[in-house]
Amino acid sequence: MFSVNVRDHFMIAHSFRGDVFGPAQRLHGATYVVDATFRRANLDADGIVIDIGRAADALRTILGELNYRNLDDEEQFAGVNTTTEALAKVIADRLAEDVDGLGLDGLAVTLRESHVAWASYERAL
Amino acid sequence: MFSVNVRDHFMIAHSFRGDVFGPAQRLHGATYVVDATFRRANLDADGIVIDIGRAADALRTILGELNYRNLDDEEQFAGVNTTTEALAKVIADRLAEDVDGLGLDGLAVTLRESHVAWASYERAL
Amino acid sequence: MFSVNVRDHFMIAHSFRGDVFGPAQRLHGATYVVDATFRRANLDADGIVIDIGRAADALRTILGELNYRNLDDEEQFAGVNTTTEALAKVIADRLAEDVDGLGLDGLAVTLRESHVAWASYERAL
Amino acid sequence: MFSVNVRDHFMIAHSFRGDVFGPAQRLHGATYVVDATFRRANLDADGIVIDIGRAADALRTILGELNYRNLDDEEQFAGVNTTTEALAKVIADRLAEDVDGLGLDGLAVTLRESHVAWASYERAL
Amino acid sequence: MFSVNVRDHFMIAHSFRGDVFGPAQRLHGATYVVDATFRRANLDADGIVIDIGRAADALRTILGELNYRNLDDEEQFAGVNTTTEALAKVIADRLAEDVDGLGLDGLAVTLRESHVAWASYERAL
Amino acid sequence: MFSVNVRDHFMIAHSFRGDVFGPAQRLHGATYVVDATFRRANLDADGIVIDIGRAADALRTILGELNYRNLDDEEQFAGVNTTTEALAKVIADRLAEDVDGLGLDGLAVTLRESHVAWASYERAL
Repeated sequence: MFSVNVRDHFMIAHSFRGDVFGPAQRLHGATYVVDATFRRANLDADGIVIDIGRAADALRTILGELNYRNLDDEEQFAGVNTTTEALAKVIADRLAEDVDGLGLDGLAVTLRESHVAWASYERAL
Repeated sequence: MFSVNVRDHFMIAHSFRGDVFGPAQRLHGATYVVDATFRRANLDADGIVIDIGRAADALRTILGELNYRNLDDEEQFAGVNTTTEALAKVIADRLAEDVDGLGLDGLAVTLRESHVAWASYERAL
Repeated sequence: MFSVNVRDHFMIAHSFRGDVFGPAQRLHGATYVVDATFRRANLDADGIVIDIGRAADALRTILGELNYRNLDDEEQFAGVNTTTEALAKVIADRLAEDVDGLGLDGLAVTLRESHVAWASYERAL
Repeated sequence: MFSVNVRDHFMIAHSFRGDVFGPAQRLHGATYVVDATFRRANLDADGIVIDIGRAADALRTILGELNYRNLDDEEQFAGVNTTTEALAKVIADRLAEDVDGLGLDGLAVTLRESHVAWASYERAL
Repeated sequence: MFSVNVRDHFMIAHSFRGDVFGPAQRLHGATYVVDATFRRANLDADGIVIDIGRAADALRTILGELNYRNLDDEEQFAGVNTTTEALAKVIADRLAEDVDGLGLDGLAVTLRESHVAWASYERAL
Repeated sequence: MFSVNVRDHFMIAHSFRGDVFGPAQRLHGATYVVDATFRRANLDADGIVIDIGRAADALRTILGELNYRNLDDEEQFAGVNTTTEALAKVIADRLAEDVDGLGLDGLAVTLRESHVAWASYERAL
């Protein structure tokens, strides 16, 4: 199995609902450094998993819709805790739509929220 | 599949028995930067894999029992080479006990011993 | 000249005023991974620049006053752009007070806001 | 499952054929920081996946055959795009030959070409 | 003293002349991950050292003139060893021209050529 | 001012004397990832600060005398706390002797003991 990864980042404000989140129930924020990993059993005719420029553009576009926003004000996240795990799935599912039909077998999205914590979501395509 | 990772570290002395270890048969030591990764097919009602504070506390407690020690003097490791691989399993198995019943599907523990070498152990839950 | 560095992090929401900030004028947020570096011309009698536990505690306490907050709501920052540079100075000046009298010669604080951008402030003591 | 990883690097010139590569069709170059990961279900009698010195030597030897070369001039790559993905497989397959008979269950090779892009190939043994 | 840093990268082919370079006298290549650090004694009216977007654009433009090229074919480097050190100065001097008049006090450029080696050039403005 | 940096590591056991060290008074150990930075106002005739191969060899030799040892048993450290700071100076002073006469202006040695702590010593030549 082959994989190709591209990295980008976005910066948002948000708050969480639920006692388990302690002080993170207050409005705060995060930088998420995002790794998008595309998997494919066999390389295409050019010898690649995916055009890395296309992959980077797709990721930048998807993160651009979240970047510099307060997620608490975004209708798409109404009633949802925008945890690192949940955001990883949102981004992975949007990337999956974007690369549909390119012959990929899977993808994973990892969001690093600090030097000591991160979360991932991985799925088949 | 979702994953959440927390990072911590511990510092120990030890030595190895066996010609394959060369100069590492002498008493020396290591810093291990530890990544504990918890996996779960579906998020819980709060939208998380595991409470990250609880995960970090569990890891800190387990590493605290090893930290600042000479593993050659620890009864629990009598007759065992405390290689990076073997320590990864010890820590993973203790974490597995700690998070039993939380609905997790697997976990992995990675011990980084330098900028050029690390070892992991991963298991189902 | 000797230096000792400890690393920690905090997560905040804020917005900026001024055209130069473009979309960052909206309420958003950041994780800041903070490196606090203490400098000293000569080591003390124990052979250290500063007790690393004390340094880490001082940094954690200072970051704890900012962590999980919306800086736009904090009176101490009224009328001030809480840029990465400006926050680095706030933290450095608070650390300077905390370590006053310990014989240090200088300190620097670096705030890493992503994998591609950071800011520092350094001063004499 | 246990894993052990060793890291090394090599520096090469090359060019790509195909419109998808844009300006990378010109002769340029790359540093590849290489992670070779060896997997094994159970540790051997010494408590290891593989002798880490042997693993590092095997990787260094294989990378030495590529290092400081223009891959466009290498007969072994005639008619092949030496993409990061393709090189990961070349190195993984050579490592697989080298460690044949040691009881390993799989290996993966990751080539990091910058702070924002990398590629991997993983296979069973 | 305040500093702000932005990171980008470029990928080139080149060769060196001189026995000291050993096998690096052959045509090979490198990825350089570039950190451009801008220094200023006092923040401007917006509370910044330099507009980070402008800094990133300036760096991208300068690296774009080098990226995906064989430096041995570039007239500007005729008769010059394009060592990491020398390239750091070329980029720093071009950045210095670009930011002239902005009130900065100094800048530094660091080129990371692998996980184990890098070079810097720093100068006043 | 130009700088060139090479990275290597060593792994030792040791203990500290003094209440300030708390549990680190017990025999434990550390991996130190070492950055040796060589400074020079002007490049030499080859366009370099120092032959990077020679720099890496010098560092490897000096670290080799410490690697895989219990520093508490080394006569050279009798009565001395082998703190990270103190070891940085030991290595810097040995490197200074090794590169004497090469026209360098300064050097710095940084020892990273974990992902959250490091120490440096820098000196003129």
